[in-house]
Amino acid sequence: MTENPAPANRATNVFAANCPSRRVLDHVTSKWGVLVIVALAESPMRWGALRRRIEGVSEKMLAQTLRTLEADGFVLREAQPTIPPRVDYSLTPLGRGLADRLIPLVTWVGNNADEIIGAH
Amino acid sequence: MTENPAPANRATNVFAANCPSRRVLDHVTSKWGVLVIVALAESPMRWGALRRRIEGVSEKMLAQTLRTLEADGFVLREAQPTIPPRVDYSLTPLGRGLADRLIPLVTWVGNNADEIIGAH
Repeated sequence: MTENPAPANRATNVFAANCPSRRVLDHVTSKWGVLVIVALAESPMRWGALRRRIEGVSEKMLAQTLRTLEADGFVLREAQPTIPPRVDYSLTPLGRGLADRLIPLVTWVGNNADEIIGAH
Repeated sequence: MTENPAPANRATNVFAANCPSRRVLDHVTSKWGVLVIVALAESPMRWGALRRRIEGVSEKMLAQTLRTLEADGFVLREAQPTIPPRVDYSLTPLGRGLADRLIPLVTWVGNNADEIIGAH
């Protein structure tokens, strides 16, 4: 049993300051990270389409967010050898698994935003 | 039908820069916000217990996070008229709804952190 700890126990590692899962949680819950993952779950997109989809994101923040998500293995970057150059972004299978957990959260926030804002 | 848009459509509001749901999403996906909600989903806690559970959080950040979550209507703060003063924190029904969407995400991150870190 020690080789296969229960998911609930493993998840609690995020409470430990030095656990790698805490760093991953930071990435996947960053403001722009969430929006990029959810946008790419709709369909693969080129840079410009992502930029337009995610209103208010700066070029710098979008580039930084995509680099982090690519390094984490969530996003696949494919540069096409065309003129002008074309770069497509899509979710990896791991990114799809993440999207499956983020979409219910984002949907819930959308459905409850009025009540939450009303609490202020 | 216009009075009852599909959840998927409403959720996409988070992509609009000025949509209130984007602000709510910022709160519920803040690093410490996620950990406080998931910790309180385990059980109501006093300030000191929360501080110990969430390793690495400063007093200032914990206070600020709890104030935001309380203002959003996710967390209930109950000060007991005892000496010394005692303050209990717990999830509201709205906070429980949020926790139900955050726990699958946090569990998934815990279960996949090794693969994600390994991608670097």
